[in-house]
Amino acid sequence: MAKTNPGRFFEDYKLGDVIAHAVPRTVGEGERALYHALYPARHALYSSDEFARDCGLPESPLDDLAAFHVVFGKTVPDVSLNAVANLGYAEGRWLQPVYPGDTLRSVSEVIGLKQNSNGKSGVVYVRTRGMNQLGEVVLDYVRWVMVRKRDLDAPAPETVIPELQKVIPAEDLVIPEGLDFSNYDFAQAGEPHRWGDYELGEKIDHVDGVTIEEAEHMMATRLWQNTAKVHFDATFRPDGQRLIYGGHVISMARALSFNGLANAQMIVGLNGGAHANPCFSGLTLKAWSEVLDKAETSAPGVGAIRLRLVATRGGEPFELKGEDGKYLPDVLLDLDYWALMPM
Amino acid sequence: MAKTNPGRFFEDYKLGDVIAHAVPRTVGEGERALYHALYPARHALYSSDEFARDCGLPESPLDDLAAFHVVFGKTVPDVSLNAVANLGYAEGRWLQPVYPGDTLRSVSEVIGLKQNSNGKSGVVYVRTRGMNQLGEVVLDYVRWVMVRKRDLDAPAPETVIPELQKVIPAEDLVIPEGLDFSNYDFAQAGEPHRWGDYELGEKIDHVDGVTIEEAEHMMATRLWQNTAKVHFDATFRPDGQRLIYGGHVISMARALSFNGLANAQMIVGLNGGAHANPCFSGLTLKAWSEVLDKAETSAPGVGAIRLRLVATRGGEPFELKGEDGKYLPDVLLDLDYWALMPM
Amino acid sequence: MAKTNPGRFFEDYKLGDVIAHAVPRTVGEGERALYHALYPARHALYSSDEFARDCGLPESPLDDLAAFHVVFGKTVPDVSLNAVANLGYAEGRWLQPVYPGDTLRSVSEVIGLKQNSNGKSGVVYVRTRGMNQLGEVVLDYVRWVMVRKRDLDAPAPETVIPELQKVIPAEDLVIPEGLDFSNYDFAQAGEPHRWGDYELGEKIDHVDGVTIEEAEHMMATRLWQNTAKVHFDATFRPDGQRLIYGGHVISMARALSFNGLANAQMIVGLNGGAHANPCFSGLTLKAWSEVLDKAETSAPGVGAIRLRLVATRGGEPFELKGEDGKYLPDVLLDLDYWALMPM
Repeated sequence: MAKTNPGRFFEDYKLGDVIAHAVPRTVGEGERALYHALYPARHALYSSDEFARDCGLPESPLDDLAAFHVVFGKTVPDVSLNAVANLGYAEGRWLQPVYPGDTLRSVSEVIGLKQNSNGKSGVVYVRTRGMNQLGEVVLDYVRWVMVRKRDLDAPAPETVIPELQKVIPAEDLVIPEGLDFSNYDFAQAGEPHRWGDYELGEKIDHVDGVTIEEAEHMMATRLWQNTAKVHFDATFRPDGQRLIYGGHVISMARALSFNGLANAQMIVGLNGGAHANPCFSGLTLKAWSEVLDKAETSAPGVGAIRLRLVATRGGEPFELKGEDGKYLPDVLLDLDYWALMPM
Repeated sequence: MAKTNPGRFFEDYKLGDVIAHAVPRTVGEGERALYHALYPARHALYSSDEFARDCGLPESPLDDLAAFHVVFGKTVPDVSLNAVANLGYAEGRWLQPVYPGDTLRSVSEVIGLKQNSNGKSGVVYVRTRGMNQLGEVVLDYVRWVMVRKRDLDAPAPETVIPELQKVIPAEDLVIPEGLDFSNYDFAQAGEPHRWGDYELGEKIDHVDGVTIEEAEHMMATRLWQNTAKVHFDATFRPDGQRLIYGGHVISMARALSFNGLANAQMIVGLNGGAHANPCFSGLTLKAWSEVLDKAETSAPGVGAIRLRLVATRGGEPFELKGEDGKYLPDVLLDLDYWALMPM
Repeated sequence: MAKTNPGRFFEDYKLGDVIAHAVPRTVGEGERALYHALYPARHALYSSDEFARDCGLPESPLDDLAAFHVVFGKTVPDVSLNAVANLGYAEGRWLQPVYPGDTLRSVSEVIGLKQNSNGKSGVVYVRTRGMNQLGEVVLDYVRWVMVRKRDLDAPAPETVIPELQKVIPAEDLVIPEGLDFSNYDFAQAGEPHRWGDYELGEKIDHVDGVTIEEAEHMMATRLWQNTAKVHFDATFRPDGQRLIYGGHVISMARALSFNGLANAQMIVGLNGGAHANPCFSGLTLKAWSEVLDKAETSAPGVGAIRLRLVATRGGEPFELKGEDGKYLPDVLLDLDYWALMPM
């Protein structure tokens, strides 16, 4: 028993700890195909090498969210095996596309700690970096989780809460080298709507729905080598349900958002996100978006658009929170991200 | 809402319209592996690069039906989003194999229109061409669908029904360049039966059955970027069932037909096809075939065989239609195609 | 009907028969990705090209069990289509890693025959070799199955039971050329435990569990082109259950054993194995291991460890057989294999 990983408990984290997460992963054409089988992903830049080349990239990269999941998955055994809840994300930036053949690894630094007043758990803040085989950082984000204590008598650490940007300023977004939307092919991309066609506050109902299957969310979650028991073992929760990895909900909602946001091609920033309610198999996931902000960029023909992406399990589109300020029970996800769009 | 695709209605089609369908797609080893995971596909030419080379091809191509699905999937948002029924196929020809790394796109031309007498819908005929990154046509077929009208007062177009060949003449089939079955390895292919061993009218019960799963048909249908809601959203139909993409039935039946037709290697012609009854998860699909015709070709050792492929959900093999001339309720698919076989 | 494969019956096997199994298969990145989607596989050597290179291999090979499944799958139509039971394995040795792009085929030789006393069936022993496109043997193993007779009056063959090693001597294990664990990165591999840290008789509960899904086991089994009806057709067994391919259980258990045996990187020997009880979808599979033996090897930094891997569907870990000497009902698999580990 001593040889298996019990996961870290709250008192095992020290401010400044740097954790090199295990199991590097080479991603390739297989992961790309599986992403298209598991999600109704249709963004042309990730579907066609030709389209990607016409946009100045060497070939079609791995979906940005797939890159996120691979980097995230590695952190689970060290960060969230004993987590009670995944509380939030901030300052997520994609710094470099991931291409077939790249090998990814992840490193996290503990940047904040706060024991809860009940003394039984605490919040751990980590900044995670995903790196490729050249040591280049491809992704950088902060997340914070609530983690149980093993020893309730362990002393509370000094409380340090990192100062995190609520929104990444548009000027801090990193545009992939060479990206050029000057000759963007709107017909092949699937929709005529360009950056200038979206208005602040505009809301889009993405219309389509997908009913969630156990085999699909497990295959997706395994593919990213996420080991959290709760996603795979129906005997783990008293209700016999497998909790679905939040990243599955993110990817499904993002893929559904193609219908209305086909030209929001690349995700470059993750401002924040909340998994408002748990997701289980059998429900039908739908999505809607809201335009939160827009900004120009220095790349030719490339605009940035800040979007709220909401996944629901029913209910009316565009309804988010109740009068009590809490998420409505049908809301599964509230994500705030930056994407790149042709101007 | 204005930004999402409502699909075209009957009155939106004009004779001669050319529609460049969106989202080009690079296919690769991942798609090939998924095809083998989703269907019990065993035809050696599509399983082994070595076998393909011994038959004169540069490497193992993507399964012909996978190529069909990719080309077909792109047409769904433009052609069949508001379709009431997929009525038929004709004059389908595979003109060039699709290899890993190829990027496919699709273009359709409206070649026929006929408003129904009820004034609520009409039949649209399109000829669809799938092209690779060199602009070469890899596949060409006609299909016709019944599409709803949005505005019942829209005037009926002039009725034009294209003249379509009931069967593609064998001399019009295109044999892939270099294909040579002179040194065909029957032992490695799995069966000793050559072109000369099949008789006109011969029927083959393929014996094996596969029980259909939601996760599998959805993964397949997504992989081809087919967006029809009815395949994915269990809340879409009043009965709560997801209708299975007809192409999933075609691929499953074709893969099952290996047992008895292991040497019917390449599909080069689609004469016609009917989705006789809807397919849902939980049923067990079986298949039988009938030899409809045979022809010689100009390629060394290569014969053509015309086959009826029938998929059923039970019942006795070889039963197709009732006394009323209608398909029996257990029949799911009646497909008429040309394949290439070693002589 | 005459064209489909009825499978061989007991009286169809003759001692010394050599069967070249059909359908060669090129494996690639797609198969690798699917293996990671279907199993929680995390062994670093099979996850990262970089890690594999640091261990002296040219790139990350296909999982050893995936290679086994591909070789095994080809034998099913010739060996076990009419099998009543898969009785055992012995003398399995991996002789060469399988890399993306390799094309595998299989050949079996009948090395033993014994008609059962009831006269209705018999035991067939075959030695199967898997070969790559260069004709190099990549895998060699013996298995024996109980096969029905078609003609009960067929005379019994002379009984020949091959002498099989109960355990492959460590010195007969083949270490992949170039393998070198001198600079093994334990942090990236996921656990600090080296060969010297494991004691004879030590038992490890791998803790994690996976609930089995129909779509997953069917996709896995199809991927290896295993055609046994019982895995795919819910109407085949009177109870309406699809029996799960024993190799799915092996791969799932092996992947779960990462937690505690992350450094048991390569499988090089299969001493024996029993599928103690049938596996069906819906159950939750767990695993435990026992260290049976250890040996040094000639490769730098590489030790061999002999492990018992047990898969269960519940019950207490480390319980295997009842007082009657029979496997407990919760035990699904009892596998005995050699793996390579950094010293």
